[in-house]
Amino acid sequence: MSNSETEWISELVKPIIEDLQSGAAELALRAIAVFQTIMANKADQAPDEVRKQLQHAGKLLVAGQPAMAPLFHLCNKVLISIDDAKTTPELIDKCQKTLDDYEKMLCDSVAKIADAAFELIEPGSLVFAYSFSSTVVSALLNARSKGRYFRVACTEARPSMEGRKLATVLAAGGIEVIHTFDNAMGLILPNCTAAFMGCDCIARPGVVNKVGSWMLAVACRELKVPLYALAGSEKFVGDERLFEFESHDRPGEEVWEEAPKGVRILNSQFDLVPFDLLNGLVTESGVLKEADVEQHLHKYDVHEALKLEPVAF
Amino acid sequence: MSNSETEWISELVKPIIEDLQSGAAELALRAIAVFQTIMANKADQAPDEVRKQLQHAGKLLVAGQPAMAPLFHLCNKVLISIDDAKTTPELIDKCQKTLDDYEKMLCDSVAKIADAAFELIEPGSLVFAYSFSSTVVSALLNARSKGRYFRVACTEARPSMEGRKLATVLAAGGIEVIHTFDNAMGLILPNCTAAFMGCDCIARPGVVNKVGSWMLAVACRELKVPLYALAGSEKFVGDERLFEFESHDRPGEEVWEEAPKGVRILNSQFDLVPFDLLNGLVTESGVLKEADVEQHLHKYDVHEALKLEPVAF
Repeated sequence: MSNSETEWISELVKPIIEDLQSGAAELALRAIAVFQTIMANKADQAPDEVRKQLQHAGKLLVAGQPAMAPLFHLCNKVLISIDDAKTTPELIDKCQKTLDDYEKMLCDSVAKIADAAFELIEPGSLVFAYSFSSTVVSALLNARSKGRYFRVACTEARPSMEGRKLATVLAAGGIEVIHTFDNAMGLILPNCTAAFMGCDCIARPGVVNKVGSWMLAVACRELKVPLYALAGSEKFVGDERLFEFESHDRPGEEVWEEAPKGVRILNSQFDLVPFDLLNGLVTESGVLKEADVEQHLHKYDVHEALKLEPVAF
Repeated sequence: MSNSETEWISELVKPIIEDLQSGAAELALRAIAVFQTIMANKADQAPDEVRKQLQHAGKLLVAGQPAMAPLFHLCNKVLISIDDAKTTPELIDKCQKTLDDYEKMLCDSVAKIADAAFELIEPGSLVFAYSFSSTVVSALLNARSKGRYFRVACTEARPSMEGRKLATVLAAGGIEVIHTFDNAMGLILPNCTAAFMGCDCIARPGVVNKVGSWMLAVACRELKVPLYALAGSEKFVGDERLFEFESHDRPGEEVWEEAPKGVRILNSQFDLVPFDLLNGLVTESGVLKEADVEQHLHKYDVHEALKLEPVAF
C-alpha cells in the first residue's frame, strides 16, 4: 500500500471513528459504504493489494470504535471472507456478498426487534429512551406508524448530545417528545411506563452502552420502571472483547474547553449495565432474560488482523 | 412606594433571583446586603414607607427563590423584627440587629458543620461533591487547611454548570479535582469513599437540592458510598413550604436554545432526596439521622407578607 492509499483510507474511516452521535448498527451500515468505496475501480489491482487495503480499513474501524460490536463483526466477516480469494474479481465478489448479507441481516433484525418492542409500548403512555440508537428509533417510529399513540421522554446524553438528535428525529416522525438534561432523569422517569436503550455490545457480564445507561438502569429499578435494551444478535461478543470500550476515552476539552489548572477532566463514553438491572434484552429472537443470554454467546472465529493483543503483565 | 422605588428594589434583588450557581446560604448572605442597601440614607423617610420597601424586597426574594430556606428565614425574621417599630431609627436598628444576628448564625453554623464533616473525609481518599454549596466548599477547604490530603470528584450539574464553579474554587484552594459530566457519575463514584451535597431546604419528607441529587443518592446507595447532606438548621422549613421548589421552573431555552417543533423542554431546578437515601445530615449540632430530624422541625411564626396562598380546589 502506498502512503497516499493509507492516507486516503484513514480519511474514509475518519467520519465513522469521530462519530459520537450514531448508534452501533448505524455505524456498521456506514462502514459498508467504506468497504464499497475501497473496492470501486480496483479490478486492475492485484488481489493482495486490495486485500491489504480492506484489512487496513477494518483494523482502523475496529480500533477507532472499540465498543461497537456490529462494526467488529462486519469487519471480521469481511476480512475472513476475502482471505482465500485468488483473483481480484473473486475477492470483490466475496466481499460484496458479505456486505450484502450483513446489511440484510441488520435490516431484518431491526424490523423483528421493532415488532417485539411494539408490545412493550402501552397506548397513551410516556416511554423513556436514552442516547441515540437506530434500533430504538425504528421501534418507536414503527409503533407510531402502526397507529399507537404515545409520547417519548429523553435526555441530552452529555457530552455529545445525541439525545437532541433522538428528540429531533422522533419529533420529525410525529412523536411528541419531552426533553430535559441527564441529571433530571429522576424527575421524568416516575411518569414513564417503560424505558428503552440501545446497546453497543453484549457479553456475559452485561450490556455496554453510552455512559449514563447505568444511572438510568439504577433509577429505573428504584422507580420500578421496566428497562429494555434493544439489540440484534450482532451485538454479542466474547467476554474478552467486552471491556474494549474502556479504551475509548475522548479529550477532556470536549467536556470543558478551558478547565482551570488542578482540574482533570474525565471523558469516558460508555458504561456497563449488568443484566440484573435490565428487564429484558429485545432481540430478533424475542425478549431474552439473563438466563437466555448464555446460548447467544456463540463462538466465532476472529481474523488474525483483528485479534486482541494479549495483556502484558 | 413610588414606581421608581419599586423598580429600584426589583433591580436590587434581580441578581439573587437569577442566580442559579450559588447555594442557599450564599444567597442569604447576599440578601443581607440588599436589605442594608434599602435601609441606607432612609433616616428622613417615614417608618411605614421603609417597612413597605423592606417587605417588598422580602416578598420578591422568597418568591423568586422558593426552594431556598435560609433566604426565607432571613426575610421572615427581618419582616417580623420591624413590624412594630414606631420610628425609622428604631426600624433600622431592629433590622440591622436581625441581619447581624443572622449573618453570625450562618457563619458559626458553617464553621461547626465543617468541623463535623472533617471526620467523614478519609486521608488520601477521593470524595464526591455535587452542585455548588458554600457549606460543602467550606468543609472541604477547612479539611485541606487542617492538612488532610484528599481529592474531590465532581460533575457539571447541568444546565447551570455550577459544578464547574465548584471545581474552580476547590482547585484554587489547592484541592485536586477530577471533573466529568453528570451522567458519568456512575463511573467515578465507585472510587469514592464518601459523597457530599449541600441542601436548599429540609422537612419531614427529605432534603431538597439541585436536580440530580436524587440520582446521586440512588447511585450512592447502589454502590454503598455513604452520602451526607451538609446543612445548618436554617434549612429546616415546615412541610407546607417544602414543595415550593416545584414552582421554580426555568425557561426551556436555557437547556436547548432552538429545540425543534414537537419537542417540549423541561427545565426544573430541584429534586427531593428522601432521608432513607442519606447516611446523615451534617448540621451544627452534629450528624443527624432520620429519627433526629423530627425534633429540629421547630415551629416558627410566618410574617403575613410571606404566608403561602392556600391551594384552591
